[in-house]
This record gives sequence, C-alpha cells and structure tokens, in this order.
Amino acid sequence: MNVTVRGRPQSFRTVTFDVQTNSVRLIEQRLLPHEFKIVAAKNFLETARAITHMVVRGAGAIGATAAYGLAQGALAFRGGDLRKFSAHVELAFKTLAQARPTAVDPVNAMKGVRREMARGRTIAEKQSLALAAAEDFANEDVRHCAEIGRHGAKLIRNGMNILTHCNAGWLAFVDIGTATAPLYAAQGQGKRFHVYCDETRPRSQGATLTAWELAGQKIPHHIIADNAAGHFMQRGQMDLVIVGSDRVLGRTGEIANKIGTYTKAVLAARHNIPFYVAIPLSTVDWRLKRGFDIPIEERHESEVLGAWGIVSNPQSGFKKSNLHRRAYVRVANPSSRARNPGFDVTPVELITGIITPVGIFKPQELWEHRVELGFEE
Amino acid sequence: MNVTVRGRPQSFRTVTFDVQTNSVRLIEQRLLPHEFKIVAAKNFLETARAITHMVVRGAGAIGATAAYGLAQGALAFRGGDLRKFSAHVELAFKTLAQARPTAVDPVNAMKGVRREMARGRTIAEKQSLALAAAEDFANEDVRHCAEIGRHGAKLIRNGMNILTHCNAGWLAFVDIGTATAPLYAAQGQGKRFHVYCDETRPRSQGATLTAWELAGQKIPHHIIADNAAGHFMQRGQMDLVIVGSDRVLGRTGEIANKIGTYTKAVLAARHNIPFYVAIPLSTVDWRLKRGFDIPIEERHESEVLGAWGIVSNPQSGFKKSNLHRRAYVRVANPSSRARNPGFDVTPVELITGIITPVGIFKPQELWEHRVELGFEE
Repeated sequence: MNVTVRGRPQSFRTVTFDVQTNSVRLIEQRLLPHEFKIVAAKNFLETARAITHMVVRGAGAIGATAAYGLAQGALAFRGGDLRKFSAHVELAFKTLAQARPTAVDPVNAMKGVRREMARGRTIAEKQSLALAAAEDFANEDVRHCAEIGRHGAKLIRNGMNILTHCNAGWLAFVDIGTATAPLYAAQGQGKRFHVYCDETRPRSQGATLTAWELAGQKIPHHIIADNAAGHFMQRGQMDLVIVGSDRVLGRTGEIANKIGTYTKAVLAARHNIPFYVAIPLSTVDWRLKRGFDIPIEERHESEVLGAWGIVSNPQSGFKKSNLHRRAYVRVANPSSRARNPGFDVTPVELITGIITPVGIFKPQELWEHRVELGFEE
Repeated sequence: MNVTVRGRPQSFRTVTFDVQTNSVRLIEQRLLPHEFKIVAAKNFLETARAITHMVVRGAGAIGATAAYGLAQGALAFRGGDLRKFSAHVELAFKTLAQARPTAVDPVNAMKGVRREMARGRTIAEKQSLALAAAEDFANEDVRHCAEIGRHGAKLIRNGMNILTHCNAGWLAFVDIGTATAPLYAAQGQGKRFHVYCDETRPRSQGATLTAWELAGQKIPHHIIADNAAGHFMQRGQMDLVIVGSDRVLGRTGEIANKIGTYTKAVLAARHNIPFYVAIPLSTVDWRLKRGFDIPIEERHESEVLGAWGIVSNPQSGFKKSNLHRRAYVRVANPSSRARNPGFDVTPVELITGIITPVGIFKPQELWEHRVELGFEE
C-alpha cells in the first residue's frame, strides 16, 4: 500500500525479496509510526532474527518472511552436493521455525516451499522452485486479502463512520490486510467514509499502526480512546465495525481477537450496528470445540502500567528532531500491579458476519461451508 | 485517609487549614502518584492559584479549598474599618470564584461561608465565623462521604471482585470519596475483597489516583486496560461495579461520568453484574430534563495521542531517582488527529442504584424522593 516518502506516495509491501542481493527486504515495523525504513536481511539467520525481534509481525507477514527466508537459505548454498544442500535447507527451516515458536504461519508457509522444492531434481532446480514457491505464497496472501476487500467493500456506503480495533492491516500481511481490506477496496471504488481507530491499549496498535496506514492511504480518520466508542455509538456516529481475528473456531463461529474486541461487539449489538470480522482462511481453527478453551495469553504488566512513545511537547505535537527520544513512561501508581490479558473471545450472537476470501458468512454457517473454507481434519 | 510516608501510614485530608500560619494546606495532586507532598497556600491569591492550576481537583475538594480560602482572606485583614473589610472579603470571593469559572462547588461553598459571616457584628466575630463555617463545610463533606460508605458497604461481600472507573476517591473530596467510600467502609468492617481499577484513558486517573489511594489503604487491587473489563466479566471475575458521577439528573436518573462509564454499564448489564453510582447530594441536577442535553466537553486531542509519566525502564519498573524525568510521550501516528469526548451519559435501565448520603435509590426514584435528597427549584 501507499507510504508517503519525502512527500511522495510510494507503494510498498511489508516483505519482498531482492534476487540480486539474495536479501529479504522488510519494513522495520518497530520504528513505526514515527519513522519509515526498509531493512535488508542478508541471510536466513538475519531473517530469522527479524522475525524473533518483531521487525516484522502479523500472521501473513511472518509467513511470507519465513517462506522467503527458506528460499534465501536454499539460494545461498554453493556447491554440488545434494545431501549437504538438503542439510543446509533443513537448518534454515529449523532456524526460521524457531524464530517465533508459537506461530503456525511460518511453519505452514515453509512446508509449502519445501513441498515445491521436492519436485526439483538438481540443486539449481530446487533453488529456483523455492523462490517461485515463496513468491507464490506472498502473492496468494495478497490475493486473499484483495478478495476479502472485494467482499467487504459491499458493506461500506458513502458517508459511513466505521470503527476498527487494533491492527489487522496491511502491515500484518504482505499487503492490503484483512480488517482494512474492505476500507482500501471501498476507497478504490470512490466511496467516501470516515474511520474511528480505537487506540487499542495497552499496546496501542490502533493509534500507531492502523492510524499510520490510514494516513498513508489518505483515508479520513480519528483516533479515539477505547473508552469513547460507546459514546459515539450512542450518539449515532458509528455505522459499522470491522475487526480482524487471531483465531476463528470453525465449529462454533466464536472469534478470539485483541483484548477489547468483545466489548466493542457488545456495544455494537446494543446499538444495532453491524459487527464484522475479516480473516484469511488460515485463521480458522477446525479443531477446538469451545471458545472458552482458547488459551488467553497474559502479557507483561508493564504494557498496562505505562506507554511507549516519543518524548514530545503535547501542545506542539510531534517533532522529527525528537525521533531519537523514544522512551517508556511509567504512568501508573508505582506500588500497584496490573493484569494484562492479551485477547478476548466474542460469541456468535454478537457477530453479524465473517468476511473471508471466499465470501461473507454468518458465524454459525462456517461449519456447513467447511469444504469451501478449506477444512482440514 | 492513609498515605505511607517514609514507610509509615499517616492519615491526611486533601485540604486542611492551619490557623497559626493562616495557610490552606493541600496535597499537591499534580505530583501524584509518583510523589506525595503537602503544599501551603499562604494567602487567598495562592489558594486561588492552586485551584486554577489543579494542585487540588474534584468537586468536594475545591469546594472546601475555596471555603477555606475565603476564611483565609477574611482572617488576613488588619484594621478596624468594616467597609474596607467587606471590600477585601468580596475581592477574595471573586478571585476564588474565578479560579475555576465553570465549577459550581467553590461558589456554593463560599456563599455558605459568607452567609455565616453576616451573623457577626464586629470584624473579629466575622473572621471567626468564617473559619468555623469553612471547617463546617469540610467536615460536612467528610460526613456525607462517610454516609455514602455506610450505605454502600452493605453491597460488598467477602471475596468480591469490584470494578471502579476513573477517580471519585478521597482525593476528589476532603476525605473518603464517593465511589471509594463503600470500599473503605467495607474494609473497616473487616471485609476482604479485590478491586480492578480501569486505567481510564486518556487521562489515566484510575491507574494513577485510584490505584494510589487503594495502595495507601492496602486494599488488594490490580490496574487493567479499559479494554479488559469485558473479558473479566465474561469469565465471572467481576461481581460489582461502583463509579462516581459528575452530574445526576434528578428528574430522570441518568448519570454523566468520565468517558467509558457507559461502556462499563452496558457490559455489567449483559453479565447481570450490579452497577452502582455513588454521589454527594450536590451532584444532583434538578433542572435538566434529558441526559442527551448534558453538555459533553471535548478535551484536547493530545490526551488521546500520548501519555504522561515518568521515564523508566519497563522491566525494572519505577525508580525514585527518575522522579524529575516526568515527560509526555507521543504514542500515536504523528500525522493523525484524535477525538476526545471527556464524559458520557449512562441511561437508567443500566443503573442498579444510586448510593447517596441518605440511602440507596433506584435512579427512577430520585424525583419521588426529591425533598429528602435536597431538591432545590
């Protein structure tokens, strides 16, 4: 999507591959929203490190990064010994898989690359198949997000105020994103609308990443405190809610997403505001039988007790010269502790629809459409 | 209430008067929760300035401060000319009234002091009546909060988890507070319970002031992101909600309070969790006919776009040596704007009861009990 670089909009993906230098090129997401920078991981170890240290984050984006990283590892091999080549590729696979051990996307993406490589007989063939498979994975991620956008854009009418929570935007995928895809598609169709970004405490991904995305795309938006959405709904100033999800239960339709999503769904239901969840098919969990069983990670309390930002003057706003002054401030009472659940679960009766690359479904209909939705035992 | 000073709990009020030095002594609330300090305003000009610059804030606390400030002005007068004395007192009245022009409590409190002064014939009599009236005002504020506590404590049972939002604690009054009063009273009765403090973005009064109060009182508590309350309710980990209010409509029972209160009420109703609002009688507005007509102040966007705190290491936590490093950090995307409504309105069907100094009422019953509740045309 668009990023304004030195005053001019340019188009980027979160992750691309540079064949000339055998590098994985990534948007350095830890600097956002205050600074935009592309970094190059020059070998699979650097690529794995970029995943570990969250230079890149988000299901689709780390999947594609790992796929490229495996191809990068294969392409770096010099020599003609097929057995040594295989051992080298396995080392790359394991290193990249361990970069973020709980994530499933990198492993799934790399398995696809390895499957393609098996079709080649020579090292050279395997190398070129690896790169093609990684490119295919990235392009498919983009295509799926584009399809989510095509279906979701139908929900957006001129003049709407749309609420988002957290960031399920293009930064979390290779491009376009999921919850943001309907926005970008509707904008492409010439529709005019306004977005409220929940700041999404405690990590503020709405205020930082989603707002940055929307600004780059010139979509009118305002950031609001998570506390304010209910008030705007009550005053008739919200028409639609679209969020992403970390896990959708294919058997029940319940969704897990960033903490606070459930609250927005409850408010939306009270005000008869449609509440949609946009996901790629890889997000569907076909095994779990109850939303209550989704493990809710409790994150470090420092996230709740303070905030990260750039030391600034609140009146004059952000200054480029302050960029080096990134700091954590402790906001809360020094002798108090915090609880910090990272996710919550939204039940089906609060969800109007699930927007997928193959269409929009009621949450209760997922199981019935499981074949279409890529059901895997 | 208690504050731990050099390791020992000591009892304080937010505002007291020192006759020896003719000073109004205030907790310097702008330094909280990171530093506890008592400051002395040595004349009515300094007292007015302390109100303006929010050294002291909260309806009851600024009312008592203004009452003491007027007595302070009267007591400072030297000479025997009654007319000059009256002019001097009027100057003090006007100066203190203009210190926070939109607040009604200082003016109401000072009118009471002036009424008492009128009973004296000599300057000396008027001076001593002024001080007695100011002391009465402060003591009555404390007595009312204690009564709120006595009624509200009946709602609290052993083992409960109680949610609060924002700060309607003793720091906002002379002592005890309103939303906190049932907690302190129940603790005094030996009941054991746990409090969740909503951090209450954007100004974080829950994470700063309420958490500081509860820590001083040794009430077990955790700070949570405003986004997290719904999750804990869903998991059965909240039993009661108590909040304060800035304005309660006597005719309808609707309440205005800090932004996010409405959201908590909606969540509580969904989970059948009792939702109570604790107020002094001065909070009841007997004129307005619809909650929709309560003006909702839109505050500066910098509150939403960033946070104030002490520059710290998030892992090692707060260090006393960092105290001078109070800073504002810009969290949000630099090119994005924010909307920042300060309050919202909660309708009657979501309110279980209103806890007042004269008892607990259903919101719809306020009008019927208006005489008891101090109805004024």
